[in-house]
Amino acid sequence: MIKLSEINTLCDLGRSKNEVKAENKELAKQISELQTRLIASEKFALLVVYQGMDASGKDGAVKDVFDNINPAGLNVYSFKKPTEIEQSYDFLWRVHQICPPKGMIHIFNRSHYEDILVPSVEGYLPKKLIESRYDSINHFEQLLTNEGTVILKFYLHISKDRQRERLLERINIREKNYKHNDGDWDTREKWDEYMGVYETIFERCQVTPWHIIPSDSNTIKVNHISKIILKTLQDMDLTYPELKSQRF
Amino acid sequence: MIKLSEINTLCDLGRSKNEVKAENKELAKQISELQTRLIASEKFALLVVYQGMDASGKDGAVKDVFDNINPAGLNVYSFKKPTEIEQSYDFLWRVHQICPPKGMIHIFNRSHYEDILVPSVEGYLPKKLIESRYDSINHFEQLLTNEGTVILKFYLHISKDRQRERLLERINIREKNYKHNDGDWDTREKWDEYMGVYETIFERCQVTPWHIIPSDSNTIKVNHISKIILKTLQDMDLTYPELKSQRF
Repeated sequence: MIKLSEINTLCDLGRSKNEVKAENKELAKQISELQTRLIASEKFALLVVYQGMDASGKDGAVKDVFDNINPAGLNVYSFKKPTEIEQSYDFLWRVHQICPPKGMIHIFNRSHYEDILVPSVEGYLPKKLIESRYDSINHFEQLLTNEGTVILKFYLHISKDRQRERLLERINIREKNYKHNDGDWDTREKWDEYMGVYETIFERCQVTPWHIIPSDSNTIKVNHISKIILKTLQDMDLTYPELKSQRF
Repeated sequence: MIKLSEINTLCDLGRSKNEVKAENKELAKQISELQTRLIASEKFALLVVYQGMDASGKDGAVKDVFDNINPAGLNVYSFKKPTEIEQSYDFLWRVHQICPPKGMIHIFNRSHYEDILVPSVEGYLPKKLIESRYDSINHFEQLLTNEGTVILKFYLHISKDRQRERLLERINIREKNYKHNDGDWDTREKWDEYMGVYETIFERCQVTPWHIIPSDSNTIKVNHISKIILKTLQDMDLTYPELKSQRF
């Protein structure tokens, strides 16, 4: 079983920040080229899931990895606490609706995994129901995979110290004030409980792969994620469809 | 394994038609009384699935079983051939959206089972994909069950002769002309293939129960279905919630 505390949150690549940044730009360009083929071929959908503690850099991972993307082929969904209406359905009801159709990339900024994480730590749902959600998620991801969606799940791994620095910046830097949320400091108190549930998730939800991304440095984080997404698109072996015309 | 050809399609109840009709009215009244509790208690959802060959009486089963129902708490969904947009998602995408929230009854007139039936008989999808759909449906129904939905599936069982009579009525009776569809006669040609796939479905999709309803007589059909639905609502043990007020 994975122990997050034993996994490096920085993972220095041994190159200058500028070198890595330049490579990231190149990777974003290649991703966007393959995205055009993804759209044209309509054979696969791509679902990218970002999970991580507050201030782990999920928003940045959306912006920088998909820097050159055609926005017509990309949708981003930020998961909030389920509304009262959403809560009257099973927890995957709202998720299923926003899954990608063929040709599209959808990014989940947080995801259905919150429906295990939060009730596990906060304890407001029966254990048996939470238990069943591991299976439900596995079966759901298997369904999507069977029917043509490739799912990539990223856990953005930061240290507790790095989180503190970033949360303080949100208080101390005027332009970052809008990101501040008192509740993030309460959640931080339960750091170890969250790590424990994440470790269980990594163990039990492997129908589609989890990638644990060292995220104390945004540049390094983007580099890791971009390479995995590019490789995934390359492996789809996407070709442009033949001309369909009876006239020319 | 169930052999449909060995199951009675009439199942005479040994009472006069009028007696059974009177009982059906009484059952509909009791169902509607319990429906008010279902709405008030918001603990469960009820999903009723009707499957059957053309002219097996699915529309009638909607109308007569839920004769006294409060329409605010009931939605009926008639499944057609998936649109081009729906086809770009997994086959359960459109189904999940229209599942009932707590407090509601939803009726599927045809359902996700068509996505096994039609491609199995018509052969336009890879066998492996169709195979995987048995599991996908089981897992999907398990998810809904875990999270508070009770699912009842009814197969309306008519004889091939009775179907012929009813299809001919749609041609010969002016008021029934609108129900006629040439394609129904083509599907009828493949009767045995459809029966074979249904038998496999009954065998493999038992996460929630199938009820095979003798449907050559509409009155008898409604009687059987109504009793099962009433019993299901009774077993939910629905109570009215306590008064929530700080003021009185």
